[in-house]
Amino acid sequence: MPIATSPAVPLTHFESHYDPKAVISHPEFRLLDASDPKIKDKEANLACAYNPKHEVNMIVKPMPVVGEGEVLVHVRSTGICGSDVHFWKHGHIGPTMIVTDECGAGHESAGEVVALGAGVTKWAVGDRVAIEAGVPCSRADCGPCRTGRYNACPNVVFFSTPPYHGTLTRFHAHPAQWLHRLPDNVSYEEGSLCEPLAVALAGLERADIRLGDPIVICGAGPIGLVTLLAAHAAGCYPIIITDLIASRLSFAQTLVPTVKTVQIQRGWNELETSAAITAQGLAAGLEESSGKVRVAMDCTGFESSIRAAIYSVVFGGKVFVIGVGPSEQKFPFGYLSANEIDLQFQYRYANQYPKALRLVSGGLINLKPLVTHRFPLEQAVDAFHIAADPTKGAIKVQIQD
Amino acid sequence: MPIATSPAVPLTHFESHYDPKAVISHPEFRLLDASDPKIKDKEANLACAYNPKHEVNMIVKPMPVVGEGEVLVHVRSTGICGSDVHFWKHGHIGPTMIVTDECGAGHESAGEVVALGAGVTKWAVGDRVAIEAGVPCSRADCGPCRTGRYNACPNVVFFSTPPYHGTLTRFHAHPAQWLHRLPDNVSYEEGSLCEPLAVALAGLERADIRLGDPIVICGAGPIGLVTLLAAHAAGCYPIIITDLIASRLSFAQTLVPTVKTVQIQRGWNELETSAAITAQGLAAGLEESSGKVRVAMDCTGFESSIRAAIYSVVFGGKVFVIGVGPSEQKFPFGYLSANEIDLQFQYRYANQYPKALRLVSGGLINLKPLVTHRFPLEQAVDAFHIAADPTKGAIKVQIQD
Amino acid sequence: MPIATSPAVPLTHFESHYDPKAVISHPEFRLLDASDPKIKDKEANLACAYNPKHEVNMIVKPMPVVGEGEVLVHVRSTGICGSDVHFWKHGHIGPTMIVTDECGAGHESAGEVVALGAGVTKWAVGDRVAIEAGVPCSRADCGPCRTGRYNACPNVVFFSTPPYHGTLTRFHAHPAQWLHRLPDNVSYEEGSLCEPLAVALAGLERADIRLGDPIVICGAGPIGLVTLLAAHAAGCYPIIITDLIASRLSFAQTLVPTVKTVQIQRGWNELETSAAITAQGLAAGLEESSGKVRVAMDCTGFESSIRAAIYSVVFGGKVFVIGVGPSEQKFPFGYLSANEIDLQFQYRYANQYPKALRLVSGGLINLKPLVTHRFPLEQAVDAFHIAADPTKGAIKVQIQD
Amino acid sequence: MPIATSPAVPLTHFESHYDPKAVISHPEFRLLDASDPKIKDKEANLACAYNPKHEVNMIVKPMPVVGEGEVLVHVRSTGICGSDVHFWKHGHIGPTMIVTDECGAGHESAGEVVALGAGVTKWAVGDRVAIEAGVPCSRADCGPCRTGRYNACPNVVFFSTPPYHGTLTRFHAHPAQWLHRLPDNVSYEEGSLCEPLAVALAGLERADIRLGDPIVICGAGPIGLVTLLAAHAAGCYPIIITDLIASRLSFAQTLVPTVKTVQIQRGWNELETSAAITAQGLAAGLEESSGKVRVAMDCTGFESSIRAAIYSVVFGGKVFVIGVGPSEQKFPFGYLSANEIDLQFQYRYANQYPKALRLVSGGLINLKPLVTHRFPLEQAVDAFHIAADPTKGAIKVQIQD
Repeated sequence: MPIATSPAVPLTHFESHYDPKAVISHPEFRLLDASDPKIKDKEANLACAYNPKHEVNMIVKPMPVVGEGEVLVHVRSTGICGSDVHFWKHGHIGPTMIVTDECGAGHESAGEVVALGAGVTKWAVGDRVAIEAGVPCSRADCGPCRTGRYNACPNVVFFSTPPYHGTLTRFHAHPAQWLHRLPDNVSYEEGSLCEPLAVALAGLERADIRLGDPIVICGAGPIGLVTLLAAHAAGCYPIIITDLIASRLSFAQTLVPTVKTVQIQRGWNELETSAAITAQGLAAGLEESSGKVRVAMDCTGFESSIRAAIYSVVFGGKVFVIGVGPSEQKFPFGYLSANEIDLQFQYRYANQYPKALRLVSGGLINLKPLVTHRFPLEQAVDAFHIAADPTKGAIKVQIQD
Repeated sequence: MPIATSPAVPLTHFESHYDPKAVISHPEFRLLDASDPKIKDKEANLACAYNPKHEVNMIVKPMPVVGEGEVLVHVRSTGICGSDVHFWKHGHIGPTMIVTDECGAGHESAGEVVALGAGVTKWAVGDRVAIEAGVPCSRADCGPCRTGRYNACPNVVFFSTPPYHGTLTRFHAHPAQWLHRLPDNVSYEEGSLCEPLAVALAGLERADIRLGDPIVICGAGPIGLVTLLAAHAAGCYPIIITDLIASRLSFAQTLVPTVKTVQIQRGWNELETSAAITAQGLAAGLEESSGKVRVAMDCTGFESSIRAAIYSVVFGGKVFVIGVGPSEQKFPFGYLSANEIDLQFQYRYANQYPKALRLVSGGLINLKPLVTHRFPLEQAVDAFHIAADPTKGAIKVQIQD
Repeated sequence: MPIATSPAVPLTHFESHYDPKAVISHPEFRLLDASDPKIKDKEANLACAYNPKHEVNMIVKPMPVVGEGEVLVHVRSTGICGSDVHFWKHGHIGPTMIVTDECGAGHESAGEVVALGAGVTKWAVGDRVAIEAGVPCSRADCGPCRTGRYNACPNVVFFSTPPYHGTLTRFHAHPAQWLHRLPDNVSYEEGSLCEPLAVALAGLERADIRLGDPIVICGAGPIGLVTLLAAHAAGCYPIIITDLIASRLSFAQTLVPTVKTVQIQRGWNELETSAAITAQGLAAGLEESSGKVRVAMDCTGFESSIRAAIYSVVFGGKVFVIGVGPSEQKFPFGYLSANEIDLQFQYRYANQYPKALRLVSGGLINLKPLVTHRFPLEQAVDAFHIAADPTKGAIKVQIQD
Repeated sequence: MPIATSPAVPLTHFESHYDPKAVISHPEFRLLDASDPKIKDKEANLACAYNPKHEVNMIVKPMPVVGEGEVLVHVRSTGICGSDVHFWKHGHIGPTMIVTDECGAGHESAGEVVALGAGVTKWAVGDRVAIEAGVPCSRADCGPCRTGRYNACPNVVFFSTPPYHGTLTRFHAHPAQWLHRLPDNVSYEEGSLCEPLAVALAGLERADIRLGDPIVICGAGPIGLVTLLAAHAAGCYPIIITDLIASRLSFAQTLVPTVKTVQIQRGWNELETSAAITAQGLAAGLEESSGKVRVAMDCTGFESSIRAAIYSVVFGGKVFVIGVGPSEQKFPFGYLSANEIDLQFQYRYANQYPKALRLVSGGLINLKPLVTHRFPLEQAVDAFHIAADPTKGAIKVQIQD
């Protein structure tokens, strides 16, 4: 049941320019198996792709043509996102993003400028950049683009969201205007991690998080942990984090020692989970609100988690959902209504990269501990298997070149 | 499953002072049948009450003692609210408001000051006032009261919400600080109608409604129609209103001739309803957003209505629910998330009466056409039967004395 | 003392494309005196220009070349703005906008599409459009453009702001993306008046004006009157308007009969003016705030007016300045500070045209009464002389073709 | 030229209850010279007062009568505020706060509960509390109190603001509802420092400071330094701080090592100061805004500082003034207007204590290094002399008992 969010329009410049059919139908394009000698060729434009058969493969793509206003980037560091794994394993996210062909993965990337297209004066070869992977149309008659909410652009090219190939590739041609300079003290790896940080920052910004806000973060996976780092940097206190898995909560405490943890027990209902959260709130001094917090940031997308969050915020509070989850969910309407609890959601991000880089460069957010595994580009398929295996305890898996 | 919203605390001043047991156990208190001569006694403190047996009766109450800081009001005009009917017919609203005894109805009232308690300098006998029926504790250590969000006060005495008796009574003693002066050009009836107007205004204020906002109002019942008047006064355009019943939509157009109407057909699914709404949006010039509106104000509380609203707002838009509805509802989580649609709720109101009276006095909102039926106090039970009978086409039923 | 607001950058596409030197140095360009037969030539691209000698002249310009993504508009209606007169009479506004050569006037325009440039699919010949006269760079690496605050674009081409020629010309080539369709019930004249309306709407939006806000508008000139219309449409009440000139206040009352007026007497100090304003506030029911309003919209730019406004708003209120005024002004810092009064300013507008057209088309704002004088294009110089002569009582002077 | 902010009303409960005349006319009240043996009496209600002769003296006051709803506090720690020194040296602040008699100093206090008035159930003897020194009327018909902006209450009793005696006294009777529990890990001294912290927090909250905001703090005095600590806790980056005195800037860097400093040179004009600020901004990565920051928090109140701040913020930025300064100041109106720069002000604070205590207890803000001098209550006069002498380098002087 696809829901059109805009009327049919001719393809924009970027939609045509990054048409994946041109890649797939190119004579140099092919899948590589593990023994293919091309994999060792440091000049080859290796990439990693998922397909509708739920496979993940190394591929080789043609060298990108660097158009006017574009920059050729040698991608040096890329993180694997939960959505990359989801596209591989499930073949779609929601009703509109469907893997219909070989589709290159990856959108958390940073790299080095290696060539400049016509008209580019802002960058020089050798510059170190983070890649903002979503390229909206930037047309003045696109409401979202004109009003600064470009994550809503109906014609965005978001690399690694089908059908567009991703940035987990050796060489990527990118619009010069959608690159962000890495400060000298920020590594490629950190630049790549600015992508999930941008998601968390967008959520905290729209959730109107302020100094001293009591907050619960539901879920201690990669997005939950990045949100934890950002909420701590924003001066939230107390911060309570929940998860089913004790080791994730311990990891959270190594990142932010003052965080309070709630290990949810299987079998708890939402009120039991909420009671455990508010008990931590009370212990941290939230006497006036009976332990309830002002905001819950849900980073799981699960109904049970969101429902427990609803019962854990004060009258007039907010449950802000960053996580993606099942498309239909049941909520306690009567309680939401009698307590004026806002339910809000985040879809990607807009205008967060400069802030993300400032915060990392300024030492307010340290992303480095999040990387638990690193692989060379040639072993990207192995990286995917680690990222997809919950027994491996991976937080963030990086592929570097 | 009651959910405590605050810890147990000693009764506040108002909770003790308005203890309904003192009324019910008073020797003068009794139920009156239609032939009781007391009903004709213009000095008697007649009132109208519901009880756990789902009956509505005339009662007589003792004359209130006018405490320090209080004013005795001769109630001159009271409207019947949907919640009054609901308490009568269903005996409760949500898990915490339960009719356990005879409980006086009514909270939409205005009247005349007839006596002053000690220390009252602000009012004089003969002053005409609207009664704000919810009296919060106003203590500095009550977070909601101290921060201006007094509708969240856990110790509020809200007249007509069990166990507190209502203002549909001849004589009512009220805290002087919670009365609002009626401007000379505002009648008692209009003063009484400021209560549902306060609900709509609170919703529009929290929904951040602004000049020129395209809006859909779901439901053309009393709250929907008051919201329509307020949204029109706020400069919303276009305004689309929906209902199942054609006559209600016609009534809406007599109030605001420029309103666009959508008569929902039984059997339509949410996408069909949404398509009809956006078709009206397109016809009214919402080309850039494909006919979608920025905000939906749901005044029904029904899942099907709220879901249709969700599909009718733009990316980044808002569905604001004023209506009370079933306590559990299923929402299209995936669509909400992919479109950053905020879901918000209103519970009563705070700080709206002065504004409501200004708008009525200034001629921006004309509430008078909403009153379809008027009864003298002695016939309040008849009034309730009209209000509860959907075939009577009542919008607002008034009881006057 | 020019203050750079951005680093030196290469000229943007629009800056090069609309380079006025290309017009002035074109062989067809010349000044026309009143008897020049060219003035009668309906095919000639007549325009009206000011120059550094403080003259206003008819000129003839070459026919514009219609570039890719552009539309040729036959300008049908243009209003004269105070800034047009100011550039003519004073040769500059502020330290950066300086008339250094013949410079075409006018930026309040609407017209008819007469030709399409390459790639334009959105418009057809014969379409009726309002022209948004400020064309920002729309580059993704321009912070203001990317974040939706495009009135801050340091590389904006604003037609009629030196050095760029204005839209008071017969034929104007405009980017297709910066035109707005006139609804069928909106005339060219009204479309042209949407420009000053956009200024007022931007001010009211940023001032966070809401339904029921008590407000004072300082100054009943064109911008003050448009602000009055918009504030009334937004449901402000009471609205008080001030001016030195009684006839302007009477005019205001013909537009909005419920407006309260304060005729400022020469010789009044700021407290006397403020006392007259709050007396009107009290008369309109602002008892709780001792007659003070929540917001003052200053449409004069004069220190004495702004100071009186400061003393007329409540603790926590706002004085919002739309008017342009002397570059240095003295404010009562101590009073501002002890009363937490915000001082805010408006510079042009962003994202207001679609809303302006909706409000006019929907009948919420009637701009037509503002036009007091109309001239054909050939007599544009006469129009300027009327607009500049305060004894003529002009509100809005229109030039039509 | 006193400006009435509200109509004359009868004295409120607190205004009568804390009437200073009752203290001064009490037979036990008297001034003490340094050799008076009463000073050594640990049971005496010693205090420290300023008077219209610009003297500061030890005094002895009667033991307070502890009224209903009050708590007797043994004040254990009090900081000296710049306003205390100002009242002593200048006899007034603004046109309405005038020292007309002996007036006890101090409003930054914390202490121990030693007795309970009637009806107090919330506190027990021995409880450790911070004292919120401003007690508003809390009446429901006081607009500011009812709407949560109680710092605007026209009938506030603010201890140490004439005529009300301050909390720099051994025993102080305080409304139970306006005390805040000290967490176990927060000392009396830190509790006392929560008062200036509340000022800074109120400013940052109203200035809408968010994670990652680039900011300049003008002035490295006590309020500037507390603002620095709070801005750092809020995740601002970069933070630039200015002052004339190098040692204050060094002190700032010991508090927040990443802060960038600008030592203003006497003789610099506002553009030179602004250039030095934006140079630091550029060095910290604010490339896109040419080094300009989003917000300036002025903690000096001086025109030259505020003007430099204005030139240092981006289009659409904000200059937020916490500092108190000369009552008339000249601002660059044209620049403010052409750059949409908001000018905002803070007056005391509302609803900040719980947050302040959370932040201190949670370790996000460490106030302890601010205390440079400590004196016993008996030597309070000496403490005042140190606080008033700029050569002593005092940041915060504490008086403890």
